[in-house]
Amino acid sequence: MMERKLRYGMIGGGPGAFIGGVHRAAVRLNDEAELVAGCFSYIEEERQQAGRELCIDPDRNYTTFEEMAEAEGKREDKIDWVDIVTPNRFHYPAAKLFLEQGISVVCEKPLCFTVEEGEDLKKTAKEHGCLFCVTYTYTGHVMARQARAMVQKGQIGDIRMVMAEYPQDWLLDSLETITEDNKPWRADPKLSGRGACVADLGTHIENWVNYVTGLKIDKLCCNLDVFGKGGVLDNNVEVMVKFKGGATGMYWTSQVAIGFDNALKIRIFGEKGTIEFVQEENNYLRVSMRHEPPKIYSRGCGYLEEEAKKYVRVPCGHPEGLTEAFANIYKDFCAALRDKIDGKEVDEASYGYPTIDMGIEGVEFSNKCVDSSEAGCAWVTMEK
Amino acid sequence: MMERKLRYGMIGGGPGAFIGGVHRAAVRLNDEAELVAGCFSYIEEERQQAGRELCIDPDRNYTTFEEMAEAEGKREDKIDWVDIVTPNRFHYPAAKLFLEQGISVVCEKPLCFTVEEGEDLKKTAKEHGCLFCVTYTYTGHVMARQARAMVQKGQIGDIRMVMAEYPQDWLLDSLETITEDNKPWRADPKLSGRGACVADLGTHIENWVNYVTGLKIDKLCCNLDVFGKGGVLDNNVEVMVKFKGGATGMYWTSQVAIGFDNALKIRIFGEKGTIEFVQEENNYLRVSMRHEPPKIYSRGCGYLEEEAKKYVRVPCGHPEGLTEAFANIYKDFCAALRDKIDGKEVDEASYGYPTIDMGIEGVEFSNKCVDSSEAGCAWVTMEK
Amino acid sequence: MMERKLRYGMIGGGPGAFIGGVHRAAVRLNDEAELVAGCFSYIEEERQQAGRELCIDPDRNYTTFEEMAEAEGKREDKIDWVDIVTPNRFHYPAAKLFLEQGISVVCEKPLCFTVEEGEDLKKTAKEHGCLFCVTYTYTGHVMARQARAMVQKGQIGDIRMVMAEYPQDWLLDSLETITEDNKPWRADPKLSGRGACVADLGTHIENWVNYVTGLKIDKLCCNLDVFGKGGVLDNNVEVMVKFKGGATGMYWTSQVAIGFDNALKIRIFGEKGTIEFVQEENNYLRVSMRHEPPKIYSRGCGYLEEEAKKYVRVPCGHPEGLTEAFANIYKDFCAALRDKIDGKEVDEASYGYPTIDMGIEGVEFSNKCVDSSEAGCAWVTMEK
Amino acid sequence: MMERKLRYGMIGGGPGAFIGGVHRAAVRLNDEAELVAGCFSYIEEERQQAGRELCIDPDRNYTTFEEMAEAEGKREDKIDWVDIVTPNRFHYPAAKLFLEQGISVVCEKPLCFTVEEGEDLKKTAKEHGCLFCVTYTYTGHVMARQARAMVQKGQIGDIRMVMAEYPQDWLLDSLETITEDNKPWRADPKLSGRGACVADLGTHIENWVNYVTGLKIDKLCCNLDVFGKGGVLDNNVEVMVKFKGGATGMYWTSQVAIGFDNALKIRIFGEKGTIEFVQEENNYLRVSMRHEPPKIYSRGCGYLEEEAKKYVRVPCGHPEGLTEAFANIYKDFCAALRDKIDGKEVDEASYGYPTIDMGIEGVEFSNKCVDSSEAGCAWVTMEK
Repeated sequence: MMERKLRYGMIGGGPGAFIGGVHRAAVRLNDEAELVAGCFSYIEEERQQAGRELCIDPDRNYTTFEEMAEAEGKREDKIDWVDIVTPNRFHYPAAKLFLEQGISVVCEKPLCFTVEEGEDLKKTAKEHGCLFCVTYTYTGHVMARQARAMVQKGQIGDIRMVMAEYPQDWLLDSLETITEDNKPWRADPKLSGRGACVADLGTHIENWVNYVTGLKIDKLCCNLDVFGKGGVLDNNVEVMVKFKGGATGMYWTSQVAIGFDNALKIRIFGEKGTIEFVQEENNYLRVSMRHEPPKIYSRGCGYLEEEAKKYVRVPCGHPEGLTEAFANIYKDFCAALRDKIDGKEVDEASYGYPTIDMGIEGVEFSNKCVDSSEAGCAWVTMEK
Repeated sequence: MMERKLRYGMIGGGPGAFIGGVHRAAVRLNDEAELVAGCFSYIEEERQQAGRELCIDPDRNYTTFEEMAEAEGKREDKIDWVDIVTPNRFHYPAAKLFLEQGISVVCEKPLCFTVEEGEDLKKTAKEHGCLFCVTYTYTGHVMARQARAMVQKGQIGDIRMVMAEYPQDWLLDSLETITEDNKPWRADPKLSGRGACVADLGTHIENWVNYVTGLKIDKLCCNLDVFGKGGVLDNNVEVMVKFKGGATGMYWTSQVAIGFDNALKIRIFGEKGTIEFVQEENNYLRVSMRHEPPKIYSRGCGYLEEEAKKYVRVPCGHPEGLTEAFANIYKDFCAALRDKIDGKEVDEASYGYPTIDMGIEGVEFSNKCVDSSEAGCAWVTMEK
Repeated sequence: MMERKLRYGMIGGGPGAFIGGVHRAAVRLNDEAELVAGCFSYIEEERQQAGRELCIDPDRNYTTFEEMAEAEGKREDKIDWVDIVTPNRFHYPAAKLFLEQGISVVCEKPLCFTVEEGEDLKKTAKEHGCLFCVTYTYTGHVMARQARAMVQKGQIGDIRMVMAEYPQDWLLDSLETITEDNKPWRADPKLSGRGACVADLGTHIENWVNYVTGLKIDKLCCNLDVFGKGGVLDNNVEVMVKFKGGATGMYWTSQVAIGFDNALKIRIFGEKGTIEFVQEENNYLRVSMRHEPPKIYSRGCGYLEEEAKKYVRVPCGHPEGLTEAFANIYKDFCAALRDKIDGKEVDEASYGYPTIDMGIEGVEFSNKCVDSSEAGCAWVTMEK
Repeated sequence: MMERKLRYGMIGGGPGAFIGGVHRAAVRLNDEAELVAGCFSYIEEERQQAGRELCIDPDRNYTTFEEMAEAEGKREDKIDWVDIVTPNRFHYPAAKLFLEQGISVVCEKPLCFTVEEGEDLKKTAKEHGCLFCVTYTYTGHVMARQARAMVQKGQIGDIRMVMAEYPQDWLLDSLETITEDNKPWRADPKLSGRGACVADLGTHIENWVNYVTGLKIDKLCCNLDVFGKGGVLDNNVEVMVKFKGGATGMYWTSQVAIGFDNALKIRIFGEKGTIEFVQEENNYLRVSMRHEPPKIYSRGCGYLEEEAKKYVRVPCGHPEGLTEAFANIYKDFCAALRDKIDGKEVDEASYGYPTIDMGIEGVEFSNKCVDSSEAGCAWVTMEK
């Protein structure tokens, strides 16, 4: 059994970045690993500032991720994993380099731009004996684990419909200030990928549904809207899906839905019952069984499934939130990593964190949505 | 100004029928009209029972609607309108006969089976100087009127998206008992029409959105599911819509969604704000304006628009419900009818009740949905 | 079995009055009785207007309730009951006169000003073989009946605590316009009684708790606040109660609680479970049993108790509201009245409507609250 | 400006303890301080286990807090503060010893058993130049800070009523297993203090109200219930309060309220508006202004007050929870501590964390509640 704390590095996540800080906070919450290296920004001043603030040894505060991969790869005390929280276009090349150095990867979604890239990363990870986690955050909630366990145990029966939505409204302000000369990376297809809202939010839905139910999409029909004068990429996404096996569903995500902060909501309808998860109320699950009144499950209560209970950190009624969801994913990933270091056989899917396969599915989903929309909202078939 | 109470008759709505009783209760609530004639059932015993219970003069408790239309048409004190609350397939022939007798019609939705039938009814009504109301109940809620006024005044700006759903679960039990020999009329296309859930629930969404926003559907893509062993007609409906002018939307209705009673929910997203209406919480409206916290409007409060206020019956915090919604539609219809009787020019659309044009649109919507689904969920274009 | 419809008269409830119209609408909803007489206003013009609008035979549209009681008492076709919806101070004298004529009474709460008056009415009713209903509206909701049945059957075990509140904010505006010369009757102790908010709202809580649980208050400690410059009588009421048997509770009612329309909320905590009723969401009941997730019971669903089911008018998910609650009380009262007319023995308490005993308890509660507050918020003992 | 991280120690919080772990997680979330010393348990095995798990230098993993205070007091690199998360009875003696060594204190509530003890700690802290924070957790929520800023700026006007409650149900199970020989410390007055539920939960209400509104209680009347066979100390608490200045309120807390996890809810009613905070929905605040629909403020949105915004960690719609609330208190405390170390004048109340004065008020409140209840629920006057 390994005794030391795990070590990790981060690329991206410099001053002002939102998600890098959440990753670091989540790791600290678990207290199982230390941040010892990084390449936080390509702006020299910000890079140095981040290094100082995060107490990184200046030798390990790198200026490029290429340099970092190479240098870390050579160290005895190299990082056990790298966290990739850069703009999307660096996900693939960065992950590739670290994997080639035998360094496991935790990567933000979307994993990369194409399925081919994703497959390549998977192959590379396998060749170098590395683990790979894609941080689909919302799989980390205790109540996501509860939903998954209930579905897997057949408590709601075969699934008939899935209704999911993920509206936000934060883009509205930036939409109005975007010009050709002043474009955030998320509004530039070269930096962000073909899909914007569909890749950023749509993949969360696609993943969560798959994670919880195991359902695979067979066909989909997608409409992408680009609202607003400054709109370049999709900011409103409507998808009809048909799953293998006969279930159907509708997914909606938007970045221009006034009055909604981050309102991921997923409802799974089975022959015996229904489960509803709302991210903004992540400590609860609404469960309805036939002929019974709907029930409000509360995170931390004794009636939860064991698969969920083991992630509970504070008693019921004491809210957990986003950071705990991230931390649970890291808890899973670190467990796998320690087993690997201890020489055990590791089946990544069994640990609970979202795997590279899920990352690849997300990339395919996102691309197929764009394909469908470009083809006049035609039905397209998922290949994997 | 007419002094007497209005008179009406009813076809359908005998013992055990749900909706006929609600219509009658709504009319009584307003106290503007009296039920004086009927043809409540084709089963003799039930017909007589209904007549007795409803204090109908036995001479005006008819055995067939054909007989009733003819007899009432000849009376000096004939009914001012007839309420049609029969199974769907009688809507058209019955309405036609009464209109030909100069008797105005209030008809349950779906209006009829085909657009042609609908157009014929419209023409007949015009020729005989009759009014025609289709009881899309949910337009009658005070907060529907509030939403309509706010949208019409531009308070939420141009509309971008419409997200609507109407899940129920009541069909699940009957699904399991349906056999070839034991089929309720709703499960028989000859009696019910081509669409079931789409006609029964989907048209409520289509109508409400149109009623409140004025948006017309340009194209739609529909998937109809038939879940359950006894399933004959659609019981789960998923529709993507594109409106004329560029707005888009998704509609979902279901009769097999465990945990949902009658959960019509419509959200209208504009450039400036969002309005959400939930039928089961019909005394409230959630309104979100950009950069402001969402607000919960309450029926009866002073800040409502005049177009809504005039329908308020009891002070805010004292719930109104389904019956009041119906009663508001009757209030509008009776106002138009009195004006007509008083010899005034009547523009039906200006009174607030859903007109025959809306009934026809519902029929087209429902048929186009079936067309789309039968064509492999292809996009089809609305013609009207 | 009586065949005719019941006949009733009304005193108070003229143009502009809120509650009289609700009573009439509730009676119409049931369609079991007809309004045939009245004394709607002491203002001649309003009296006549009301008579015309309500189609009252001018001979039975009386100018004083004294005249009405006498005249109706002599008629062969006299009213079966009188509805008293006047300002509070007329409740007692009016009820007394009608009872003496053998006419049953439905009276708004508070029943009267003193327990002695209440006892006198009870005695008079008994002597003249009359029934007496006090319209504590919120006992009429289906889910109030559901709660009562569940408690009576021991489903939540012995009761430990009752937490109840009834905040409104409508008084705020009128508070600011009250002057010595311009005082509504509710702000004048001579017309309204010693307690204002406590009598108007507090008694609803006291009654509902007693109606549902059977608990009797042993002692109470009350603070009455008079907020606002124009404040004359209590508009904010805080009460601690100790019930016979050891349960305790807190009641709060207010007319100056900004943001609350009519938010009666009652929670009953037993050894085995908890029941919560919120008037503004009267179609639901929140039920929590030990070690189980809270459940949301929905009016109209199959799992309701028979005692509640029989009052359901429309299917679950189709909201009922205030008018139906009133109508259910009238349904109970009319059932008792028909039995009495048919010569049966009538045990009023068994029909479900709130009896004169409950009215008297309300008067005692209200007066004891004022006593307590006047004595420096001292504990006082209920005597009945 | 100090450069190093702060250092702290902990007494209590060994394996299985709930709150110690939350304190440590909160400190890690901020990443401003390191745990370097402790006295985690009086059970040798647990003490050692905790030390190992928390990577404490064995020299600084003490067996008694007396030893720890003395040893740390002598070190050059002594801890900057000690966290006291022991059973209640050790709060006072432990805090006293550390203060005498010049070590600042963060102490769980209730601060101590008597006002005299509290005053002594305050005096000792002052004499030794130490800071003192009492972890009333719920003051740490962003929306608590928002509420405080809104009230202080007069946005809801002068306060009229405060309605607060804090029901839980966790005690029910342990109640049934308590015997004379098997009593948890919370059920033993010698270990826990005179009040149980009132000290554990009631003080949270008392503090939060005071923290947010500045209101001071003048008089209170309290009923303490001891429900259940195993009940020794109060597990249900009902309090009426009169504040200095004329506002009034009701507080209810319970540990036997089935269906409630940790449902702290506080409503503050002013002349102009109302603010409602619900701990289990800590990312929101319900704000109602006169004549306007209630608004739902969301943590992280642009319209928040600056006093709240500065504590926001993740964007709106991404839930924060209990750990962040604790972390915000530590953020405030560490800011004060760094200023002190940097030689600045420190006015503790200005930093935002709950001070020892608030701790003392909580002790007085709790004791006065017990006094009142023991005196037959008499009104008692707060002295401070």
